[in-house]
Amino acid sequence: MENFFYNIPTKVSFGKGAIDDLSGYISEYGDSVLLVYGGGSIKRTGLYDRIIKLLDCSHISHIELSGVEPNPRLTTVKKGVQMCLEHDVKVILPVGGGSTIDCSKAIAAGACYDGDPWDLVGHPEKIENAMPIIAVATMAATGSEMDPFAVITNEETKQKKDIASDLLYPAYAILDPEYTFSVPVYQTAAGVADIMNHIFEVYFADNGDTYMQDRMMEALLKTLIKYGPVAVSEPDNYDARANILWASEWAINGFIACGKDGPWPAHSIEHQLSAYYDITHGHGLAIITPVLMDYILNEKSLPVLVNYGVNVWDIEKTKAPYDIAREAISKTQKLYEDMGLTSDLGELGVPYEKDFDEMAEKAAAEGLEHCRVPLTKEDVVEIYRRCFK
Amino acid sequence: MENFFYNIPTKVSFGKGAIDDLSGYISEYGDSVLLVYGGGSIKRTGLYDRIIKLLDCSHISHIELSGVEPNPRLTTVKKGVQMCLEHDVKVILPVGGGSTIDCSKAIAAGACYDGDPWDLVGHPEKIENAMPIIAVATMAATGSEMDPFAVITNEETKQKKDIASDLLYPAYAILDPEYTFSVPVYQTAAGVADIMNHIFEVYFADNGDTYMQDRMMEALLKTLIKYGPVAVSEPDNYDARANILWASEWAINGFIACGKDGPWPAHSIEHQLSAYYDITHGHGLAIITPVLMDYILNEKSLPVLVNYGVNVWDIEKTKAPYDIAREAISKTQKLYEDMGLTSDLGELGVPYEKDFDEMAEKAAAEGLEHCRVPLTKEDVVEIYRRCFK
Repeated sequence: MENFFYNIPTKVSFGKGAIDDLSGYISEYGDSVLLVYGGGSIKRTGLYDRIIKLLDCSHISHIELSGVEPNPRLTTVKKGVQMCLEHDVKVILPVGGGSTIDCSKAIAAGACYDGDPWDLVGHPEKIENAMPIIAVATMAATGSEMDPFAVITNEETKQKKDIASDLLYPAYAILDPEYTFSVPVYQTAAGVADIMNHIFEVYFADNGDTYMQDRMMEALLKTLIKYGPVAVSEPDNYDARANILWASEWAINGFIACGKDGPWPAHSIEHQLSAYYDITHGHGLAIITPVLMDYILNEKSLPVLVNYGVNVWDIEKTKAPYDIAREAISKTQKLYEDMGLTSDLGELGVPYEKDFDEMAEKAAAEGLEHCRVPLTKEDVVEIYRRCFK
Repeated sequence: MENFFYNIPTKVSFGKGAIDDLSGYISEYGDSVLLVYGGGSIKRTGLYDRIIKLLDCSHISHIELSGVEPNPRLTTVKKGVQMCLEHDVKVILPVGGGSTIDCSKAIAAGACYDGDPWDLVGHPEKIENAMPIIAVATMAATGSEMDPFAVITNEETKQKKDIASDLLYPAYAILDPEYTFSVPVYQTAAGVADIMNHIFEVYFADNGDTYMQDRMMEALLKTLIKYGPVAVSEPDNYDARANILWASEWAINGFIACGKDGPWPAHSIEHQLSAYYDITHGHGLAIITPVLMDYILNEKSLPVLVNYGVNVWDIEKTKAPYDIAREAISKTQKLYEDMGLTSDLGELGVPYEKDFDEMAEKAAAEGLEHCRVPLTKEDVVEIYRRCFK
């Protein structure tokens, strides 16, 4: 097991009515918040009104930054920073999904940094301080409410990059599974694929004996496999939503990666697709993952794919190892299809071959030679091809 | 899933040479420490010298409280409190096992409380502040280095009680699996039984659908079952020690209990044995657990025992449910025996029948009527009887 440093300081209030204690958490830091949200779904569900009422009752003043984009932009971050400074805001209160929370993290760091927030990309050491964040999550997918990462898009340079620092873990995450009842079926399914990929990113790394972490990851994967389809067919199923939401946090908050490290190429390969064609990230991952698993199936990846098949999918361990691996891959693809996600990139409007070369080159440049099974640009082109039916 | 509040603030430095960053962690809080330890095994292993050198190099002053008892006493706590106040100590630095760390927690709370530290027993609300603790763990068992509990013995009143508060989570835990190489075989085995019992305490609770937590607990149990015997037969096996040590933290730091709550009677039943006959707590648990599981086996406990058998012990799920449960119980007992722990209370010097009635009455008074399978005093007497061969 590799050495590691564990630090997950976020406190979580989880369950029905978790929002009720919001004011108490805010009051630990002050009496003025920047309320950050996206397109307004929180107004339709009544969550916005509930929060405003809670703030008013506790005499907590607020200003609002709304309309945060699905890929939050640097200009929006800068706007938020300016609002914090002008209005002496003490706490940032994002209410929404990953984009809203990511944007808030960049604001939290930017408001304590004397310069352009974009400077902080790739420079965690420049983040010496950050404003406290209390995140109210309304969907299960990115896990941003309990992790230290923020992905920001610079519209001018057309770059989408990470800002990361342990100081960006939200102080509190408020997780009420009922808020996720209204997440549409398609986003629910894509979210489950995204969460599973967060786990695969670590599970397939090759760092010696991490028996405990590997079994913990299998526990999370089993949870998502059991409850993904339930949440899709019964959006108001509390147990399904609760298990998925709690699993989404542990898939990426840093816990499973303790003692493990190494790239899993799905993210890099998909990243180009959503950048070129604006497809849903989680759906892109759902298409690529089984194809990728099949492509890298060889003596080196066989043991972990057999573990995946036997421990996650309950495939009979007496079967031939390659059969176990192939069955696990095929079950993975079927899971995504059963949740309504097509396995055909063509159906998502991605043209065959057109940009494969360019996209593969960018993907390969993200370190795919360091994966358990190293991949070249040519490999990535072939993987794109196999994602068409 | 029940609502819950999650808060595990302890930062963990894990791995070979983790001690090297000790001074940096201390310096966040000040330049004077109270070094707390037990019988001196840290002097034999060289850890003491290493720590003193690190402190000296960083000009961190220290005073020492040594000789902390296996069941730390209130008088020792009071002595530590006085030392902190007289010498303007900024950080408490326990180096050792659960007793040393528990004692340090009580000192940390007592030094910030104007009154007798014993007042804090059962009164977490009286703990308004606590000194920072940086814990260096030298064995895997109690998990005290990453949990908020301290068990203290009041010699005058002959009571052994808990002090608990979220303020008592150590700020840092330094976990180098190599420090646990020198833990004797018997203590290693008893420690594994203790850790497994921490998990059983939560696993057998009945709180509706906690699918994710249940699978995570099974992952931890599998880790202990795989590596307990390895650590016993190869004390210097790093992977075994690392997996056990990391699992020991997650067995009791609060994570698995999120969304689950309910008593598991083994602790209460054993507690009397170690109080009356001073047997090793983990060994007592190893004897009682299989007997207890067998005793409570009925329609109500069957589902969880079948899960335990199939998911933890890999017992064929097509077998009859009661057969699966009995096989799992028998495998549990064999595991402990294989690690050198007798299943016979008589061999530990406990007299048959003598104090059963009195002990059972005390155990039953600890809320055993609220267990998944409720137990009376008479049940406990019968369980004690069955722990003799």
